[in-house]
Amino acid sequence: MMGRFKHGDDIFYGTVSGELVTSMDHEGRTFELSELTVLPPATPSKIICIGLNYVDHAIELDMEIPTEPVIFMKPSSAVIGPGDRIVYPSMSQRVDYEAELAVVIGKKCRNISSENAMDVIAGYTCFNDVTARDLQQKDGQWTRAKSFDTFAPMGPFIVPKEEFYPSDVNVSSLVNGEGRQSSSTSNLIFDIPHLIEFISGIMTLEIGDVIATGTPPGVGELERGDVVEVKIEGIGTLRNEVV
Amino acid sequence: MMGRFKHGDDIFYGTVSGELVTSMDHEGRTFELSELTVLPPATPSKIICIGLNYVDHAIELDMEIPTEPVIFMKPSSAVIGPGDRIVYPSMSQRVDYEAELAVVIGKKCRNISSENAMDVIAGYTCFNDVTARDLQQKDGQWTRAKSFDTFAPMGPFIVPKEEFYPSDVNVSSLVNGEGRQSSSTSNLIFDIPHLIEFISGIMTLEIGDVIATGTPPGVGELERGDVVEVKIEGIGTLRNEVV
Repeated sequence: MMGRFKHGDDIFYGTVSGELVTSMDHEGRTFELSELTVLPPATPSKIICIGLNYVDHAIELDMEIPTEPVIFMKPSSAVIGPGDRIVYPSMSQRVDYEAELAVVIGKKCRNISSENAMDVIAGYTCFNDVTARDLQQKDGQWTRAKSFDTFAPMGPFIVPKEEFYPSDVNVSSLVNGEGRQSSSTSNLIFDIPHLIEFISGIMTLEIGDVIATGTPPGVGELERGDVVEVKIEGIGTLRNEVV
Repeated sequence: MMGRFKHGDDIFYGTVSGELVTSMDHEGRTFELSELTVLPPATPSKIICIGLNYVDHAIELDMEIPTEPVIFMKPSSAVIGPGDRIVYPSMSQRVDYEAELAVVIGKKCRNISSENAMDVIAGYTCFNDVTARDLQQKDGQWTRAKSFDTFAPMGPFIVPKEEFYPSDVNVSSLVNGEGRQSSSTSNLIFDIPHLIEFISGIMTLEIGDVIATGTPPGVGELERGDVVEVKIEGIGTLRNEVV
């Protein structure tokens, strides 16, 4: 697994093995994980999210299965890392969690076919598509509801594509330790290769860009003081407190 | 006026005075404008656009005057400069121009009141919010329709805020030299200070970020081969061919 870390004023990428982090700079110096601040593992120029992409979530909402992905974006200014706090905005009275599997792009690319999609993936991480549900409904357009600072928690680490097979893994969320969402990526309506073909057919993807693949059934409300976790089998747990 | 330029492999900001460009690097070396490639004048981390912001456009569409701005985003990968080509995507059968006045942010900021909004503005430029109208209607969410590569032409130069008063200037568009849109920023429903207060209340704005303030009545279709111009009194003309 790979992460981004801070030690003093120094920011670097490192590989994680148990409680040890080996820096990719510093001539391979090794740190204890506990001495480091864990930063968001990617610095995306854009975050592309998918609207409704779990069969079981579509059934829950009594919505038709879409024939094409519906995309929206979150700005890079919304990104926070594991352990960082989600700030409940005063503009909203209803903020929801949405656990998602995220793909991190490893190569600048455009017009990639689904067959070649694996070539442009760096790896995978956990993502929480935090949403001001009341503003989403009010605006029609989802941008405001999805774009508040701290509304794009991601991490803790990136699992390289060579070590992770996203076709049937459990994606779940917990609030204060209680299970809320749980489904398998086998329920994805549009799988990752097709999402990459679709999105790269619209726009150039840059290194570090993030595609959040949609959320399972069971989305629900967060309160100030809650601790929300996004847990993905084979990746780990992304934990954030709401303040 | 200020622009971004390329000379050989060198990219730099410069001040424009008639046909001469004085580099802000190179110890103030002066170039002929004709020796330089004019690049997009800003490199935004995000572009925030406003949905319906001209009174006369709202009347034209027979829509209610909104009580709050509706925002959406375009990705930085969509940015092109003056003279660059707008690529008509094969996914769409209807691509429209939308002439807009754009604000370029000069200071990283959050929660700026309308009274202090001028402090965080670097200047103003022309913007074309190119839109695949058929996909906008199909998706409901506007992201795909607005995010194709080349769908965010901006330029040619930035007029510093000290030299431009945006409260009553003409914003117009022409296709192949024929006038299409024309209105005054005095018809803006939400003026620039209020847009900055609203948007910076949601998200941190970074240096170079762009806010496109909405489009006047008269939007319409582009065909391959068309030359589209966005003309703003006191700024200049942004010209792009559609291919």
